[in-house]
Parts: sequence; C-alpha cells; structure tokens
Amino acid sequence: MEELVSLAKRRGFIFQSSDIYGGLQGVYDYGPLGVELKNNLKAAWWRAMVYERDDVEGLDAAILTNPLTLKYSGHEATFTDPLVDCRNCKSRWRADHLEGNTCPGCGSGDLTEPRPFNLMFKTQLGPVDDGGSFAYLRPETAQAIFTNFKNVMDSTSPKLPFGIAQIGKAFRNEITPRNFIFRVREFEQMELEFFVAPGEDEQWHDTWVAERLKWWGQQGVNENNLELYHVPADELAHYSKATVDVMYRFPHGLEELEGIANRTDFDLGSHSKNQDDLNLHSAVTPNKESNARLAVQNLETKSWVVPFVIEPSAGVDRGVLAVMNEAYRVETLENGSERTVMAFKPHLAPIKVAILPLKRNHEGIVAKAKGLKRELQALGLGRILYEDTGNIGKGYRRHDEVGTPMCVTVDFQTIEEDDTVTVRDRDTMDQERIACADLAAYVRNKISEPGLCLVSDITALASALDLNVEDSRMTVLGGEFAVLMALQGEPDKLAQFKQQLETLCAGNNLAYIYRDTESRPPNQSVRPYVATVMALDHPGIVYAVAQFFSARQINIRDMHTDTRPAAHTGTPIFSVSLVAEVPADVKVHSLKAQFEAFCEEADLDGHMEAQR
Amino acid sequence: MEELVSLAKRRGFIFQSSDIYGGLQGVYDYGPLGVELKNNLKAAWWRAMVYERDDVEGLDAAILTNPLTLKYSGHEATFTDPLVDCRNCKSRWRADHLEGNTCPGCGSGDLTEPRPFNLMFKTQLGPVDDGGSFAYLRPETAQAIFTNFKNVMDSTSPKLPFGIAQIGKAFRNEITPRNFIFRVREFEQMELEFFVAPGEDEQWHDTWVAERLKWWGQQGVNENNLELYHVPADELAHYSKATVDVMYRFPHGLEELEGIANRTDFDLGSHSKNQDDLNLHSAVTPNKESNARLAVQNLETKSWVVPFVIEPSAGVDRGVLAVMNEAYRVETLENGSERTVMAFKPHLAPIKVAILPLKRNHEGIVAKAKGLKRELQALGLGRILYEDTGNIGKGYRRHDEVGTPMCVTVDFQTIEEDDTVTVRDRDTMDQERIACADLAAYVRNKISEPGLCLVSDITALASALDLNVEDSRMTVLGGEFAVLMALQGEPDKLAQFKQQLETLCAGNNLAYIYRDTESRPPNQSVRPYVATVMALDHPGIVYAVAQFFSARQINIRDMHTDTRPAAHTGTPIFSVSLVAEVPADVKVHSLKAQFEAFCEEADLDGHMEAQR
Repeated sequence: MEELVSLAKRRGFIFQSSDIYGGLQGVYDYGPLGVELKNNLKAAWWRAMVYERDDVEGLDAAILTNPLTLKYSGHEATFTDPLVDCRNCKSRWRADHLEGNTCPGCGSGDLTEPRPFNLMFKTQLGPVDDGGSFAYLRPETAQAIFTNFKNVMDSTSPKLPFGIAQIGKAFRNEITPRNFIFRVREFEQMELEFFVAPGEDEQWHDTWVAERLKWWGQQGVNENNLELYHVPADELAHYSKATVDVMYRFPHGLEELEGIANRTDFDLGSHSKNQDDLNLHSAVTPNKESNARLAVQNLETKSWVVPFVIEPSAGVDRGVLAVMNEAYRVETLENGSERTVMAFKPHLAPIKVAILPLKRNHEGIVAKAKGLKRELQALGLGRILYEDTGNIGKGYRRHDEVGTPMCVTVDFQTIEEDDTVTVRDRDTMDQERIACADLAAYVRNKISEPGLCLVSDITALASALDLNVEDSRMTVLGGEFAVLMALQGEPDKLAQFKQQLETLCAGNNLAYIYRDTESRPPNQSVRPYVATVMALDHPGIVYAVAQFFSARQINIRDMHTDTRPAAHTGTPIFSVSLVAEVPADVKVHSLKAQFEAFCEEADLDGHMEAQR
Repeated sequence: MEELVSLAKRRGFIFQSSDIYGGLQGVYDYGPLGVELKNNLKAAWWRAMVYERDDVEGLDAAILTNPLTLKYSGHEATFTDPLVDCRNCKSRWRADHLEGNTCPGCGSGDLTEPRPFNLMFKTQLGPVDDGGSFAYLRPETAQAIFTNFKNVMDSTSPKLPFGIAQIGKAFRNEITPRNFIFRVREFEQMELEFFVAPGEDEQWHDTWVAERLKWWGQQGVNENNLELYHVPADELAHYSKATVDVMYRFPHGLEELEGIANRTDFDLGSHSKNQDDLNLHSAVTPNKESNARLAVQNLETKSWVVPFVIEPSAGVDRGVLAVMNEAYRVETLENGSERTVMAFKPHLAPIKVAILPLKRNHEGIVAKAKGLKRELQALGLGRILYEDTGNIGKGYRRHDEVGTPMCVTVDFQTIEEDDTVTVRDRDTMDQERIACADLAAYVRNKISEPGLCLVSDITALASALDLNVEDSRMTVLGGEFAVLMALQGEPDKLAQFKQQLETLCAGNNLAYIYRDTESRPPNQSVRPYVATVMALDHPGIVYAVAQFFSARQINIRDMHTDTRPAAHTGTPIFSVSLVAEVPADVKVHSLKAQFEAFCEEADLDGHMEAQR
C-alpha cells in the first residue's frame, strides 16, 4: 500500500486534502491524473447502468439533506458506530476497530464502555441559529433516490421493474478514517436503486450480483481477487432482507468494494404517507410528515403496490483504489533495472496518448507534435498530452508509471525524412515507426485493442464454435477499425457466439451490432442520381453545385472533385461528380431540366443521370 | 420564469430538494433529464479547458475544507453579507436585497442596523465536540486549487503560463435564496485558475474574457443576451485588481453568469510560507501555518516569483438556467395549436434520439426498435431513449418539450416492407423515411449538423474567400460524415479560412484537421504484401490465416473474404484476400516460404506477393 500511496501523490493521482496546513483527516483530493481516472470509472458505470439499459433513469440530487429524510430512513436512530473514550489520554476510538482492550494512542487499558456515536455531519442552515434549522450532509446517495421516487415516476412514467441511478458525494464522520482512500469522511458513491414487484426481488438480487461481478471484470479487476460474502442474518442492516458484499483483496486485506442489498419495501414505505393502506412487508416508523404516496398503481386491480428495492451500491474511491492496485506492477527488465507500470485498461487510463517532441525549441518538431495532439484529441477518446520535457527515455518511464498506453515521439526523421513517428507501447515496450497519416487510425485501434488481435479474437470465436465465415470486410474507416462479417452455422452456436462477442466487446471498449439476416428489398424511398460537372478551374463551383441540391432538400450522399490539365492545352479542368438522393416526391424530369438551366447559366458542362 | 420552472419539474429536469418533506430552501435536485443536461455542459467546459489546451491540468478536490485555508484566503473575515433583523416578526433578511427599509415578511419598518453574517457552512469533524475540530463546506472551488498548487507543480512540472481547472460543488449559506437555481445554497462551479507571470496578467485577462464569451456562444447563448460588466474599483473584492462579469439576461433580469477576475498574487501569497522573501504585490495576512512556498523559481536568476492569477469562474447551475432559457420557445402552429420546444444545441440535449415503437407489444417491432437503440447507443453520442408509450404524436410533442433533436418511429412498414423508419426532426417537424442501414450515419450527421449543410457551409466559406477547391472527397465512413478538401489560395485568405473553420466546427461539435501541404515521401517502414488464399468452404480458414500473420507480429491492414460457387461444379469456393504490412526487419523470402509451407499443410491454395 505504501508504494501505491507514494506513487499516487508523486504522480498527481491523489493528495492529502489541505496538505499545506497539515491535512484534514480522512479527506483526499484527486489530482490531475486522479480526476481523469475517477471520471473514467464513473463514466463506465453510467454507460453500463443508464445508457445501455432501457429501464434506468439518472438523478443528481443535493448533498444538503432535510433532517426528516434521515429521520424516516432510520439514520438518525441507527446510523451509529460504537465509540469508546480512553480515560488516560482522552482520545476516542471506534470500539470494533480496537485490538484487544487497549488504547491505540497511549496503550492504556482504562477505556469507557462503548456508546453509540452518530456518523452524520450536521450544518446550520440559514441565518437563524436556533438549533432547529439545520441540514445533514447526506450519508449515502440512496435516500434522495427514494424521496425523488414520485418526481421521477411523474416525469418519466416508467413501469416495474425500473431503476434510478446516481453518482455523487456522501459524508460520514468516521471515528478512525484509515487505509488511504478506503475509509474516509468524504467519498463518492455509485448507487442504483432498482425497483421490482414484490416476489421478483430474490431473482433480481441474483441477477444484479452477476451483473456487477461482470462489470468489475471489465474494469480490469481480476476475478481471483473478488469474493462474494453473503451477509449472515444477524449482521444485516435494519432495512435488509439479504445482502451480498462484493469483497476485494485490497492491499490491507479483504474488504467490501460494493454491497448489493435487497432493501424490500422498507425505504419507500418509510417515506410514504398513508402507510396503513399500502400492505407493507417491512416494519417502518409511522410517518405523518411525508406528503406523497410512494407506490405504483396496478392499473387493472387499481390497488397500490410498494415495490421492493435491489440496491447495488459501489464506492467510487474504493473502485479507484482497486483498479490502481490491479494495475500496479514493478517489473525487472533484462538489464536488471526496474520499471513501474500502471497497466490500466485503456478506457480507464488517465492519459490515452502522450506526444513527445524530441526538441522542445525546434519550430518544425513542435508544430508537428502539436498538430498531432489536436488530431488525436479530436477522436474524443479522452486526454491526449503534449509533453515537451525533452528526455524521451525518461518520458517513457514516467508514462509507464501513470499508465499511458502509448507514447508518440516526433523527431527529425518525422519532419525531414518520411513523416513517420515512433510509437512506443506501455506493456510490451516495443517501438515502431508509424506514418503520421496512419496515426489516428492506429491509436483508435490500439485504445480499443489492437486490430491484429481483433481479427484473431473474432475469428477464433467463430472457429471454436464451428461457424463458417461466409463473407467479411475488415478495414479502417474514418479512423475506426471496423469488421463486417457474415457467419453461418447452427442457431445455438450462433447464440453462443453472440454472447461471447458481447463479452469480448464490453471488455475491450468496442461496439458491435449483431443481427439475423434476411433478404431485404431495395430502399425505394430515394433514387440515387449521379451528377457530373466540368468547367475551367475557378472558385465557387463546388459551392454552387452543392447549393443547387441543398436548396431543393436533396441529400448529397457522395462527392468527388478533381482538377486535371486538359489534353493538348494543359488548361486546368475542374470536375465535380456526386451522388444525389432524389426523394420519391421530386419529379426527376423537372429536376433534370432545372439542373440543365443551372449549368447553362453558370457556364458549366453538366450532366445528370440515374446511378446504374 | 414560472413556465420554465414548471416545465423543469414536470419533465424531470429540476426538482425542489426534499420535496416530499416540504423542500429545503435554496437546494435543488437534478432529475433524469437535468443530470444529462448538466453533465453535457460540464463535459463541454472540461473539453475546452483541459483537453483542447496544452497548458491546463485538472483537479477534483474535497468539499470539506480545513479552516486554516479559509482563514488565510480571507473568507473567515470578509465572506459576509449584511443582515438585518425585523424587530416585529423576528425574521432575517439580506440588507442589500430589501426594497426600501421595510420587512418583506410583515411589512414593518422596524429593522435593525445591518451587520455582517458569514456565509460559510460549518460542520463538526471527528467525534470530539470541543469547538476546535470543525471543517467548512468550501464556499468556492478556487481555494483548493491554490492549496494544491505545489502538489500539482511537483507532479506535473508545468511552466508559466499554466492553469488548473476544477468542476465541483460549493456551498453558501445565502440569507435569501431565490430565483430558482440562480441563487442557491448548494451549487456547482466550473473554475479555472490561470497562473501567469506578473506583468502579463492584464493581457491574459483580456484573452480569457474573449475566450469565455466565445464558449458561451458555442453553448447556444445568444450574444445579444450577454453583456460585459467592468466592475468599478470601489466594488472589487479584496483580492481583485480587475474583474469583468459576463452578465446574462436571465428571466428575472440581467445578472452574473460568470466572473473573470485578475486575482493578482493575493491567493498564492496568502497561503505561502516565507512571504517576506517573495516580493508580493498584494497585501496578505502574515502566515506562519503554511508549510509550503507557493511560487515558481526562475531557473536562470534563481529568484522566486509568485504568479498572478486570472480566474474565469462560471456557475454550472446558472449556466444550465441560461441554456434552458435560450432553448425555450412556444410556437403557434398553422392549425392554431401551440407546441413547446427546447431547442438545445445537440451536444447539450439530454436525450439525443428517442426510438418509438408503434406497438409496444408487437414482438417484431419491439425487437427492431431495441436493436436500433443498441446500434445508436454504441455511437457514443450520449443517451438514446427507447420509449414504448405507444402514442407517436404525443411522443413527438413530449420530446419537443425536452429538446430531443430526433425521434425515430418503428412501424409495420419497417418490419414488413422496406426496413425503413420515420425520422422526425425537432426543429422543422419534418418527417422522412430513412433506411435502417443508413440510420446510424444519418443520426451522427444530424447530431453534428446535417451533412447537406456541412457541404454548403464549408464550400460557402471557401467561396467567400476566393479559395479554390483543388480536390475533395466527401462521404460517410464508419458512421462518420467526413470531408477531405484541398484548397488553394492566398496565405492570408487561407489563414482566415482556418479561423472561420475553427469557429464553425467548435459551434457544431465537429472535429477538423487543417494543415499546410507539402510533398511527402512514401512510408518505407513497412512493405505491403497481398496474400490470397482459396479453399473449399470450411470453418476456421480466416482464423488460421489471421493467426499466421498475427503470430509473426505482422499487421493486417485490409482483408476481404468471399464465397462463390466454382464454375461448372457449383462447389462453394472460399477466398481470403488481405494486405499485410511486413516490417523492414522481416525477411520476405523466408516469410514467403513459411506461408507456402503453411498453405500446403492446411491444404489451401495460397499466394503472396508485393502490393503493386
């Protein structure tokens, strides 16, 4: 753990908060690389939970929380840790964290009996300090999901089962924060509250445990370092019917990374008015202060049902720590020296590519390097770093240490000889020369796994399932590595292929489309027409021609222009050739006549005919 | 404003926090659409501030803040509002918000003299309630940037000028929160602290004011609704040498959207140790508690310089309010009915596309619609919604109201006739049938502006500047609309073109690459070889061939496979043709021999030769 903490500070992942004033216990700041890593992990969760599903809505609620919310949730009464005082040195400790019955501060055994200490932070709200106007800092993001249940229902009209997802800060006044960012006072949660019909809760609980294990695997967490802990009945929280903890082998031991609880109807029931009419399963505090019925009406029977809740609740900071721990390795090289590598999955790496100019003051090299940075940045893959510290070898090692998958070096060969750059791979340390023109495609392929492996991996899948590759195309299109493949085989083998393809793609940040083929009639809604125009080379021709179609709401699908010297005279002749999609309601005869008139007026040699 | 607040609640943008318990004054929650809108706005800022620049690092610091930080920043002493009590009804008010000298609660004129009220929230930290262990909730994100100055310097070694950017929550105990999400107690900031050499501060101040105005324009804020307010000397905050506020015409009046301040060396100076050695420009409180020198060393003169700070500081919530206000319009249609539209810029729209199945229970329609959702989701443009409420017309209106740029309807024609869908445009309300196979490309083009306009816009730029289009290609590649264009013209016209192209692209979420051309030698680091293989159609051939090259670390650039019946017999013959990139250090003669042996062993009719 110590090496990881040291690397985290040295390389700008995580700093002790208020460092220059001696810190603030249990509070950390995320530095330039930490903020990217954390945001990438959160984005991966949001993608999986909200975007890729059809049954989850997002939410971003406030931190300041009305005390009534935390009264009816049970937090005011029960969100406590047992606390003991040392009578000798006057320090306070969490009783269940003591080893033996001695004070960790002074070693004295003269401790008080444990008493409950509420972990919620309070703050005065508004200018009147009468003790009555205060808010809590939320101890979990979950409660605001429950109190917004009706707002979300009313605005999005979902049907059971459905979920509400939230990522955000939460606060717990831990008595003894410890183990770096594992147990802290200010932290971030990724919580889903998934509402299901009573009776379907146990099945959904199982489903979510499986889903979440799969997701952690996709973030690079080795399944051998994960264990499921089925919380025994006598350890369950007051709201829980069953809880499965996803335990991770942290540097300091096996501890909870995520908890997946079956919260029954406790939460919605507790925050609801008219509880007596709701046929609640759980024992809730009577509530006369809520103004809303938090239930779903069965439109046939007209009866109200309070859904059960399955809650996968993950710690963002714990996730960051797990992902960093998995990625961290120290390798001994052939020459006996060591290197430190953070082998992050590319979609999590804080910096995707570092661009290193060989000379920081050479105008040509710097301009080239900055141009490449802009080009790669436009791919939208994440942060691309331009770094002009000069020493390339040190740059490589520095980027190994922060997990940058690729370094690109621009040197004199680049600008004086062949317009290629050196691309150096984090994991293999191999270096190869790549043409600048190919760099964007190369980076895109590597960041979503190398193209070479992609072909092997997919064809290996097909081969193992006895599927026949009927037809295929593979190429780089617009900077994207793309494969098209028609497969033929037994239906059950195809189903297996689809499943494995999904895993392969999800684990490698790839997108795929799988569909059963059928014969398809030609698209008859538009007719493709080829228009060609030739003229003496002068400005404005392309614009005029494009305008002609644009003004008539006709889409241009494809366009190709060229300038060539005319035979004998050598006069430059400019040509435009395009495919226009003529909608069914446009009369072609009339369009052709208009096109002819347009060409005549502009003195262009034009022609238009249906595409063969 | 009322209509906007009502729409915000009804459609799930923004809810009063703790709604079911009567709310919490000055605190709001972002619902399913609000969270997307807010995240999109924050992502646009981060892209512009961190990713697209070479001189800014990111940070994500904690909310809980050491009191010493806010002592030396001046917040403990001066972060106050004047407060008056009503002696009649005992209520408290912000003195400078009163109209006349009467209590807004009861109308009494019996008010106390104004006295300063500190706006910072406090909370007790740790289990010992002795009054000494407390933290503030940060009143601004800026201070943690200053206290982390040395951490960021040490971990990233930047050179002046450089900036540190942060987005996050901040808290102010406003006496009278009001105007919806404009003046609230919990809010979010996007702050950049840009550190410059003293003497260069005024020039950078001007630069940042211009940059920020441009950025707000790109978010769809009409420049006619923005005004610059040069804060007069007697209104400046204690740290400021000059401040320019970007004022926006909010529904409730012209008020601050963003402030851009020249904070001089006040902040770093205030938090630094050894202040006497630093030749500070500003008057700071002597500091014996900081353990760090927050300065930059001039490596030549060895002297220490405390940078000046230019701070563009924008409110996220105010930005959301401005963007919503700009987008909101009520239109009267030809038939006399009204429709409400939120005309968000596509990159800010909470939902990019809604997929509407005509029948929610028809297996074929539902499967098709869900397949299209997955396909569009994989484009990574943001949220794609599958919505099976059945009534298509109502669906269109609902999506107008939340600003979804496009609705896609799947009906019987889709699955039974021609595999096309209806695409309905938010702004024009036009509907057109699009082939499902073209939908991804169509959506991508529309979300980053329609292809038709793109051609017109770019050629119009060139034409207006008398530039000649020498050569061009325009097509849809891998779902991306792409234009390649070679232009010829005067250098200053080309420079103007480049500038206008940048504005066009930035405003439309497009990426571009502009470069001066030069003759280029062929890339000699790899040699392309064409390999073809023919065999009876059986599984595993593609895999085996790909493996052959993969195992030798040879990249496959392009591949094409096909199955055709043999002449006369009709036996299906399978062929693979690929282009392999053979590195310079691979001996071709030996590779060819290995390939021949491989084909012989696998009984394949193979051939390999250099690409002509």
